[in-house]
Amino acid sequence: MTSPYGLHRVVEPVGVLPQQAWRLDATPECGADEVLVDVERLNLDAASFRQLREQHGADVRRAVLEIVAERGKMQNPVTGSGGMLLGTVRAAGPRSPLGLKAGDRIATLVSLTLTPLRITDDLAGWDGTTEQVPCAGTAVLFGRSIAAVLPDDLSDELALSVLDVCGAPALTDRVVRRRAAESVLVLGGGGKSGSLSLVAARRAGASRLVALVPTEAEAGLVRASGLADAVVVADARDPVAVLEAVGTPVDVTVVCVDVPGCEHGAILATANGGVVVFFSMATSFSAAALGAEGLAADVEMLVGNGYVPGHAAFALDLVRAEPAVRALFEHRQTAQA
Amino acid sequence: MTSPYGLHRVVEPVGVLPQQAWRLDATPECGADEVLVDVERLNLDAASFRQLREQHGADVRRAVLEIVAERGKMQNPVTGSGGMLLGTVRAAGPRSPLGLKAGDRIATLVSLTLTPLRITDDLAGWDGTTEQVPCAGTAVLFGRSIAAVLPDDLSDELALSVLDVCGAPALTDRVVRRRAAESVLVLGGGGKSGSLSLVAARRAGASRLVALVPTEAEAGLVRASGLADAVVVADARDPVAVLEAVGTPVDVTVVCVDVPGCEHGAILATANGGVVVFFSMATSFSAAALGAEGLAADVEMLVGNGYVPGHAAFALDLVRAEPAVRALFEHRQTAQA
Repeated sequence: MTSPYGLHRVVEPVGVLPQQAWRLDATPECGADEVLVDVERLNLDAASFRQLREQHGADVRRAVLEIVAERGKMQNPVTGSGGMLLGTVRAAGPRSPLGLKAGDRIATLVSLTLTPLRITDDLAGWDGTTEQVPCAGTAVLFGRSIAAVLPDDLSDELALSVLDVCGAPALTDRVVRRRAAESVLVLGGGGKSGSLSLVAARRAGASRLVALVPTEAEAGLVRASGLADAVVVADARDPVAVLEAVGTPVDVTVVCVDVPGCEHGAILATANGGVVVFFSMATSFSAAALGAEGLAADVEMLVGNGYVPGHAAFALDLVRAEPAVRALFEHRQTAQA
Repeated sequence: MTSPYGLHRVVEPVGVLPQQAWRLDATPECGADEVLVDVERLNLDAASFRQLREQHGADVRRAVLEIVAERGKMQNPVTGSGGMLLGTVRAAGPRSPLGLKAGDRIATLVSLTLTPLRITDDLAGWDGTTEQVPCAGTAVLFGRSIAAVLPDDLSDELALSVLDVCGAPALTDRVVRRRAAESVLVLGGGGKSGSLSLVAARRAGASRLVALVPTEAEAGLVRASGLADAVVVADARDPVAVLEAVGTPVDVTVVCVDVPGCEHGAILATANGGVVVFFSMATSFSAAALGAEGLAADVEMLVGNGYVPGHAAFALDLVRAEPAVRALFEHRQTAQA
């Protein structure tokens, strides 16, 4: 009997959900409500990749292989985060509710932190310099997993890159519409989730968009894109600098900067009665909670849930419809390549 | 020119917020938007007191004096935590927005980690055996600080105990009303913030209240109180057990259990479209974010902000109006004494 949450794949400790487990059973056999995937590429979470690079340097390939071999999944033991993967369905169980069939090329939209994974090529094709990892191996999806069939009209790189952060624009859209928010600040507005959040906020009706970026070079790119009404340069970790750069506090602040210590700047830049949405996995819960209290800030603070129904199609459509976003994504890919 | 965040009191390093500062200027002069307080007692944060006792033993009094003399605030350099204080307003600046006047007996609701403090009695009245520290000296509140006038009709102990958790019922009230939520689950419904959240949810219109508690003994107390419609016993850290105990998912889940690992149970127990409010400081941001995504759960997740305007008066009124809550609080005080 298989569980839609994958409880039957948990080896250690028994009885917890796959994400909390230390170790999963990644045996490539397809249960009745499971989907078995031939993996083509892993897309590591940015915070995880950064940490692994900092800790292991050139040995990052070995570090990833060891984590997956030991844990049966790619979950960074320090950051707790994972990423996503791209592959082709090898088999779908008769009771799988995901609507996938053998041969579909897909991207998983659930985290690698709970996806049983086996690597069979020693990651021989990865040089360790980017978070996109060519990979041969197998992965397993559960009944409650989420996967998107890859579109024909966008390159894999672009589609994966968009799907990786597709929760951010969907939740930004929801928050801005619900609040009828006029002003929106995006910390890290030049990044992937940041640029998508800017365009989602614009389409949801926001009339004053501010992008905060770390360097003049990035500011130039974002200014040229036209995605924001104002582009300011400041260190997102410096609350006083953020407040001064932004000026008038905004209705909604979206945090897309994957470095620790951005909580207080986001809170200070948000008007009373406003909302802060934290998408960065580097967010500290206690820094956010105690920071708002210490600043007597009546702001609603949302944990950025990566799942919003329809988020994949929503994000892909934004990229199709907005050449400026597409250009920023492609520029990042070129810059990283 | 004074800053509502107290930036003008920061001595080292210049330009950071008072909480992040190493040293504050605690000069007992009342700026235009400041409030000067004659201190009566410090309540050290429990984790800070424990660390100081372990490191300094009988010399803990000297250790506290040295920290305050050096830093201009009582922030434990090891734990980073502070506590709060009781005192009487000596003067309120003409532009202070806090609504306090000379002679008011108050408790500060912002942390000692950002409160300029000077001690003048060498802590002569403290024997170093409890975290409640009789103290003569002065403290400074900023424009954006928070303080509550202590009520005449409740003991200091009871009032402080309520003020310590007063953000939880205020935010629960707001969330339940905004959503017109019918069913509310409180993880840790027998505790201080939990019992206040239950009664706040009831008054906000919820018709099905479920309290989840860890033991049969605590279940007995909560059942006798009548605060919940159903009281269930389960380990809040076990998502599968939480889901089974709660049965039908609820509209709003409030997490008041101060142990790590309660994120996934809270998410599983919440219906799609519902809200989870995390008040526990043991909450892991990434466990919440990745958990919801991994479970394909469309739930809104809020970081429990300890500040909601009016929260102190709201919580004190709940305790006055609800004998069952007051009894639970007094039972806990007796049990701890």
